[in-house]
Amino acid sequence: MKRTNYCGDITAALVGTKQTLCGWVNSYRNHGGVLFIDVRDRSGLCQVVVEPSSPFFDIAYGLRNEYVIEVTGTVKRRIEGAVNPHMKTGEIEVVAEDLKVLNTSIALPFDVENSRNASEEIRLKYRYIDLRNPKMFANLLLRHRIAQAARRYLDGQGFIEVETPVLTRSTPEGARDYLVPSRVHPGEFYALPQSPQMFKQTLMASGIDRYFQLARCFRDEDLRADRQPEHTQIDMEMSFVTIDDIHEIVEGLMKEIFKTAGKELKTPFLKLPFAQAMDQYGSDKPDLRYHLQIKNVSSLFDHTGFKVFQDVLSANGAIYAVRAENQAGESRGHFDKLTELAKKNGAKGLVWLKVKEGTVEGPAAKFFTPGELAALQAAVEAKPGDAILVGSDVNVRTCQSFMGAIRKELVKNLPKLTDWAFAWITNFPLLEYIPEEDRWDAAHNPFTAAVEEDLPKLEQDPGSVRSYQFDLVLNGNELASGSVRNCRRDVQERILALMKHSKEDAAIRFGMLLNALEAGAPPHGGIGLGLDRITALLAGEESIREVIAFPKTAQAACPLTESPNTVDASQLEELGIAIIKK
Amino acid sequence: MKRTNYCGDITAALVGTKQTLCGWVNSYRNHGGVLFIDVRDRSGLCQVVVEPSSPFFDIAYGLRNEYVIEVTGTVKRRIEGAVNPHMKTGEIEVVAEDLKVLNTSIALPFDVENSRNASEEIRLKYRYIDLRNPKMFANLLLRHRIAQAARRYLDGQGFIEVETPVLTRSTPEGARDYLVPSRVHPGEFYALPQSPQMFKQTLMASGIDRYFQLARCFRDEDLRADRQPEHTQIDMEMSFVTIDDIHEIVEGLMKEIFKTAGKELKTPFLKLPFAQAMDQYGSDKPDLRYHLQIKNVSSLFDHTGFKVFQDVLSANGAIYAVRAENQAGESRGHFDKLTELAKKNGAKGLVWLKVKEGTVEGPAAKFFTPGELAALQAAVEAKPGDAILVGSDVNVRTCQSFMGAIRKELVKNLPKLTDWAFAWITNFPLLEYIPEEDRWDAAHNPFTAAVEEDLPKLEQDPGSVRSYQFDLVLNGNELASGSVRNCRRDVQERILALMKHSKEDAAIRFGMLLNALEAGAPPHGGIGLGLDRITALLAGEESIREVIAFPKTAQAACPLTESPNTVDASQLEELGIAIIKK
Repeated sequence: MKRTNYCGDITAALVGTKQTLCGWVNSYRNHGGVLFIDVRDRSGLCQVVVEPSSPFFDIAYGLRNEYVIEVTGTVKRRIEGAVNPHMKTGEIEVVAEDLKVLNTSIALPFDVENSRNASEEIRLKYRYIDLRNPKMFANLLLRHRIAQAARRYLDGQGFIEVETPVLTRSTPEGARDYLVPSRVHPGEFYALPQSPQMFKQTLMASGIDRYFQLARCFRDEDLRADRQPEHTQIDMEMSFVTIDDIHEIVEGLMKEIFKTAGKELKTPFLKLPFAQAMDQYGSDKPDLRYHLQIKNVSSLFDHTGFKVFQDVLSANGAIYAVRAENQAGESRGHFDKLTELAKKNGAKGLVWLKVKEGTVEGPAAKFFTPGELAALQAAVEAKPGDAILVGSDVNVRTCQSFMGAIRKELVKNLPKLTDWAFAWITNFPLLEYIPEEDRWDAAHNPFTAAVEEDLPKLEQDPGSVRSYQFDLVLNGNELASGSVRNCRRDVQERILALMKHSKEDAAIRFGMLLNALEAGAPPHGGIGLGLDRITALLAGEESIREVIAFPKTAQAACPLTESPNTVDASQLEELGIAIIKK
Repeated sequence: MKRTNYCGDITAALVGTKQTLCGWVNSYRNHGGVLFIDVRDRSGLCQVVVEPSSPFFDIAYGLRNEYVIEVTGTVKRRIEGAVNPHMKTGEIEVVAEDLKVLNTSIALPFDVENSRNASEEIRLKYRYIDLRNPKMFANLLLRHRIAQAARRYLDGQGFIEVETPVLTRSTPEGARDYLVPSRVHPGEFYALPQSPQMFKQTLMASGIDRYFQLARCFRDEDLRADRQPEHTQIDMEMSFVTIDDIHEIVEGLMKEIFKTAGKELKTPFLKLPFAQAMDQYGSDKPDLRYHLQIKNVSSLFDHTGFKVFQDVLSANGAIYAVRAENQAGESRGHFDKLTELAKKNGAKGLVWLKVKEGTVEGPAAKFFTPGELAALQAAVEAKPGDAILVGSDVNVRTCQSFMGAIRKELVKNLPKLTDWAFAWITNFPLLEYIPEEDRWDAAHNPFTAAVEEDLPKLEQDPGSVRSYQFDLVLNGNELASGSVRNCRRDVQERILALMKHSKEDAAIRFGMLLNALEAGAPPHGGIGLGLDRITALLAGEESIREVIAFPKTAQAACPLTESPNTVDASQLEELGIAIIKK
């Protein structure tokens, strides 16, 4: 007889019916000769009862955890005291009339229920056990639903999913490419794409008009924190659009994605210029769930006697302060820790002050006039019982950044204004100067367009040229990066020249795209959103590894398949390559 | 002003309205000073009229093919004689009130309209021009719709799309793997997957129950006819199923896919056992759009005096014949060509006979009795005016195969019974003997399950063991291959042993899967369907390259990106590999 239902779907409505379930033995108990077996499948658990008189009692008695069984029986209501209100199927049980063992299992290194307590190495090695954990299944299901929702929405908006090659050409940022030796063309290599960027722009030149792809992207980098060698991007590009058009599409997309997780989003999202984000939050991906801001208090210290601040201000630096709510009672050790955090983020030091009734105290208080202290307190809206942290640096951006790190630490103790704080960070500069290499580099993406009216000063004053670049941030995470692109070859070449790519070099590295731009490319723009991160946030997971079926370790290895691995010498010979001992 | 409509959507219903179009100059004509510009976007063409008095007439006059423009104007009905009934927008034109050039274009190597007549190398090098051809856009759109339909249907059936890794382990059929050197683990390699086979089976052991993925698969083989280094598979696996369950799901899937192309399919599909397919059509992927069958006529020649047939029959070979309708009038040269075709497919020769009123003639006719000739004619249902082709071989399979090749040639002249002839080819043997290597090999897939009751004779008589393998064929193309899999490690190891994989070797090559099978793997089965081929068939294209945005040449190269290419020595050094001159 065939499976009639998933275990988790056997509810009281089915009492009296005969059902066949297939699943895993989650646990078993022997109560006075009667066997109680919790059968598990992806939908949940169902309690099966085997009476001592059953002809298959011996088989049932031999069951162990994770054996795979098929059981047919009648759904009965549990007796009063046996009802389990915490279980979806807790009102019923299935009294077995037939039972088959479909497969056995060896003893396993960890329980399915406790799999998430095992070490990561062990979880990944036995991923097929770990994924039986209901939370892991829920994560994969959520990921599927998000992907489906994204596709459905974009399809409805006239976007066409186009698959771009995985075997392609080594790109600008070549150092991070995974290479694939070609057997047919010895000495040559394909590269795995870091993103479909040039292909999607080429598709705009191809008249596709609206493209998307859930695209696998590859990056051979040392895996910090929570990176993977391969990740999935909701990748989009569209023609004849402005930044606002792109924002509108993405806001609609995020609404749909959040709906799959039962969450209602309000749009449009806040737009926050980059300079303002740095000035108010000290970050280009501020966590806007919290109200706290840093404040530029430079003007309060125009006439200060404090040498450090004098020097900073005369070098056109900046002084920022932030309120530390209710921290006036904290120890010196506490403020030392915050100072360390600031230093790790580029600060030379940090001034801390405690606000008491009618006075402001602290080791550095003596350097300031009562007027300065009062103005400072007012600027950060500090109240008695609060502390105030003040940082300064000759480099304004540096000062903002370490004060942003302090803010990030402080908000951990503050109430959230909302669960989901989205913002567009806009008005990025086009180029950033790299002093070590004496060249300009794209602040974000080498294909981002400059604001049209700034083009005349591109060569004279590159740093002042504004761009059509933007980021989408959520709760302090950068979810996506997008821009309106250059659609003219000559402008693109001028920008690449500032990045120290000669015309010849640019033609080699970006040839496909440059050729497409001079053959009637429409104005276009797009964005790429990290599916792994979005899913992890919605699943309430810290790590993207919890929402990837078969992730790799921080050493870019897979304990399950034991890859990477050595290969036969004959395979290398055929590819015309050899391993060099270092 | 923003685009209000696609060009192809400006119909007579919009007469009198003001519209803004964005698109490419498809063509332009000057009729007595009035300019007529056909503007193209992905939806079609729209005629724009520029009056000589327009302030932007000079701009319009400077337009060339493939310039990108934005034009605003009022929709007017064309005058009587100017209506173009072959054009969707042929009743109207847009009288320009504003016109902007958004981008220019250099002169192009071929016209968009005639792009499909250019050489393949040129088409691929300028793919961004080629893809502007409406038929190419239609192909990509169809592919997108098929993919969407497949996902929607499978989602509705409880399948979950799970992404499996692209960077994984070199697999059983290692010789065809693309390898990726690991920088972090020098001397080791990832491999790109030939299919997600082992991962999807592992997902079944993980309790996913129903998995699918539109999966990129990679194969480094010499590109015959119509293969690509990477292709996309609609990959599925499900637990607790029989062959019939899998067939039912796939039939529903094909119905949905065909619906997107406006075609209604009848299900269930014909089921044709492998032995019968070979006996009747001489092929395991018969083109069943045609009625013609080959016939085993061995028994008619039990007492023949023809030495060749005598020898074949005494060696347990076979004789097959096929009717060649209306070919009695063909020349010797025609039959020589058919003989060549048979030889190319393994035949030593071919007997051909012409059926006339009351007699059967031909060079070999003299070797047969009138009774034999009459029986032969009756067996293949040949009529006067037809020819009969007869082949024989000591190896029955060889005889069927070359007669199958002859049949494939003959049906080209026959009427179709239907446009879309699907069939399941079933009852494949589990194993095939490889004499050169003195071992057994999987007839299809090493993970296919044997029919349970045949398991006892697995070691004694491997060739007689039946399998749960099946193929899906459409119009002579193999679209998909599937099976119910082994779900027990011991059985899988016995089969691998017959393929000459020791336990140790099997553990290295198939470790992940074998480990999963002994840890409570459910019974499961699945299938992989070729998305490229399905799309090509529905698009009416001969080659899958016509339904892939950026395909590679038969030399596995991409003329657009010029990949593969040489890379910097420093990149190789970092990977710890060197190029060996052969």
